[in-house]
Amino acid sequence: MSVTAPRGFAASGIACGIKDGGALDLALVAADPAGPVAAAATFTTNGAAAAPVRVSREHLHQSGGRAGAVVVNSGCANAATGAPGMAAARKSCGAVASALGLAAEQVLVCSTGLIGIELPLERLLGAVPGLAAARGQGDEAALLAARAIMTTDTHPKQALVRAGAFAVGGMAKGAGMLAPNMATMLAVLTTDAAVAPGDLAVALRRAVDRSFNSLTVDGCTSTNDTVAVLASGAAGPVDLDGLTEALTATCADLAFQLAEDAEGTTRVARVHVAGAASVEDARRAARRVAESNLVKTSLYGADPYWGRIVSELGSAGAAFEMDRVSVAYGPTLVCAGGVEVPHDRGDVAAYLSGSEVEIICDLGIGEGDATILTTDLGHGYIDENMRTS
Amino acid sequence: MSVTAPRGFAASGIACGIKDGGALDLALVAADPAGPVAAAATFTTNGAAAAPVRVSREHLHQSGGRAGAVVVNSGCANAATGAPGMAAARKSCGAVASALGLAAEQVLVCSTGLIGIELPLERLLGAVPGLAAARGQGDEAALLAARAIMTTDTHPKQALVRAGAFAVGGMAKGAGMLAPNMATMLAVLTTDAAVAPGDLAVALRRAVDRSFNSLTVDGCTSTNDTVAVLASGAAGPVDLDGLTEALTATCADLAFQLAEDAEGTTRVARVHVAGAASVEDARRAARRVAESNLVKTSLYGADPYWGRIVSELGSAGAAFEMDRVSVAYGPTLVCAGGVEVPHDRGDVAAYLSGSEVEIICDLGIGEGDATILTTDLGHGYIDENMRTS
Repeated sequence: MSVTAPRGFAASGIACGIKDGGALDLALVAADPAGPVAAAATFTTNGAAAAPVRVSREHLHQSGGRAGAVVVNSGCANAATGAPGMAAARKSCGAVASALGLAAEQVLVCSTGLIGIELPLERLLGAVPGLAAARGQGDEAALLAARAIMTTDTHPKQALVRAGAFAVGGMAKGAGMLAPNMATMLAVLTTDAAVAPGDLAVALRRAVDRSFNSLTVDGCTSTNDTVAVLASGAAGPVDLDGLTEALTATCADLAFQLAEDAEGTTRVARVHVAGAASVEDARRAARRVAESNLVKTSLYGADPYWGRIVSELGSAGAAFEMDRVSVAYGPTLVCAGGVEVPHDRGDVAAYLSGSEVEIICDLGIGEGDATILTTDLGHGYIDENMRTS
Repeated sequence: MSVTAPRGFAASGIACGIKDGGALDLALVAADPAGPVAAAATFTTNGAAAAPVRVSREHLHQSGGRAGAVVVNSGCANAATGAPGMAAARKSCGAVASALGLAAEQVLVCSTGLIGIELPLERLLGAVPGLAAARGQGDEAALLAARAIMTTDTHPKQALVRAGAFAVGGMAKGAGMLAPNMATMLAVLTTDAAVAPGDLAVALRRAVDRSFNSLTVDGCTSTNDTVAVLASGAAGPVDLDGLTEALTATCADLAFQLAEDAEGTTRVARVHVAGAASVEDARRAARRVAESNLVKTSLYGADPYWGRIVSELGSAGAAFEMDRVSVAYGPTLVCAGGVEVPHDRGDVAAYLSGSEVEIICDLGIGEGDATILTTDLGHGYIDENMRTS
């Protein structure tokens, strides 16, 4: 139950031959009946943004925030591919537009996979009529789409939030290079709420900031990240705050699934920082701890070495006073006033060996707080990333 | 041949019982004959700076840049130890001052080891007379001092640069948490050049910026980093540029030794970025590549995946135009104009399997360039850091 659960959408997922062995590699999420609906998206901030990111951004601008479909291929990022890559992304949109009776600028495109490889465009274009014909409104169609966008993911990620009269559904992919500002992840969301494109864009931006942009796996920011949403309007007008909350809940659900499935991860940690001089300081400090290889390696070893956390807090660039800082692992306070609080290391180690842990820091200075979701760093990450071929 | 090679210095290294099993853990570098000489130091920028960093900074300020000794203990960082930690650092200096006939503010102190552990002060104080008595001017004394400052280092690091009439010697420790802005590393340098404290401080700052601060292992910045230099004056006045060059060469030699011995490292990489809009942009881009877990894991696997490098360059916050970027692995150009250049992946993989490799990037925008030294990220790093106890 995901992108087809809100009324007014169909999805499909097929194999078009980008990946070897007949693996699913092409997905479509489209308004149903076909036609343009309100659309919004947030994209990577990477200056090396891939062709599909550039083309989708352009299309949303040209269409005034109206789109009828999102087409996603996995197995090739179409990044660092120059002018031919841009042409390939445009032709992909054109083919989907023809199949669905849309204008080309009413189609968004996403690609995920290796960088620097040419997109096998003929295979993709040849498969578009079949992709369109395969559209369905059931759970099975949504699941095929969610499977077709996977790369190193071990399982598809789907979410659904019902909020009274309307619903938000979503699917996502991502298992490595997850960082604040989205890294290599894609998500396609749908809602049957009726909302103007401008309002939808604001709601999406808020939802992404509080979910995907508060997740870090390795601090890397990819060339292809996109979160796109289509709003069919079938449920009629909704309260904008309610829509924002439902989008946030859907994105947060997907973000947690991404963290759990991150390459080589054995546990997920929430790093909370309170008492910062500002929210910006809190985010800076939480991110510094969450991205620290030493903290993440300690998490892998379930090692309660709080000194590394204090060291990262102190070097985060946030206002910091050593004698005011406190740190707790879940329920156990281990540092207060900048020095150790007597505690049972065995108890803390047992807590840290769980699959979900909390690191709770208080800077003791102001009112700013923030939470960043992160993962441990262990042998699995090395094995997964040391060779791409 | 290191800290005792320049004229006017003696050194010693003993076991005082901070480490188990009689391992060397206390070192002294002192002007010889005893007395204050010109001194300078650079310290960690971490807001959680350890007691010895705070005390040494205070002493240099009080003494007007004059010191007669640097005392270093390993096995305990005396960080996150509150007021008792500050008192312990002051008493350590006082004991050394008494033994050498100096004022307390003419002694600098460094500590390295685990954070949050109380310094075994009585053992340290009890050992100071023996430490002072063990001072020697020969290579053996310098080697004992270099060994006594080691933590997870697999071997002592020493360097000596002779520049005509004067010399610069140095010893360093550090094998993890190495980052720009020094991370957990200590270095003590000596020179027989005659130089005013203010000039010595400027020369040291320049040398550190071009050596230790251009080295990154895991992006972490420790609580205890210190680079201290004493100048005996025995060689008479020297050209300040020449002194800066000799200090830089000594620091660069030690920095390379630190990188080679970094926890779990199998190879060292120099990341060069040229053609940036400014030197700051070049440093930002080079550091982003050098600190990327994905790039570092690729280096571990000797995997020529240049897409990760371009992605990091694009997200570094430096001015960036995708169609102007080029990347080479050593002699082999793999990307130009933002797209792949045909190349033999096997040749590149063979090159990348060496112990020293170069990643050469050109942003094609301006004249700014920078080089950052980094290491790969592999299973050894995980094993070394996943548990501290």
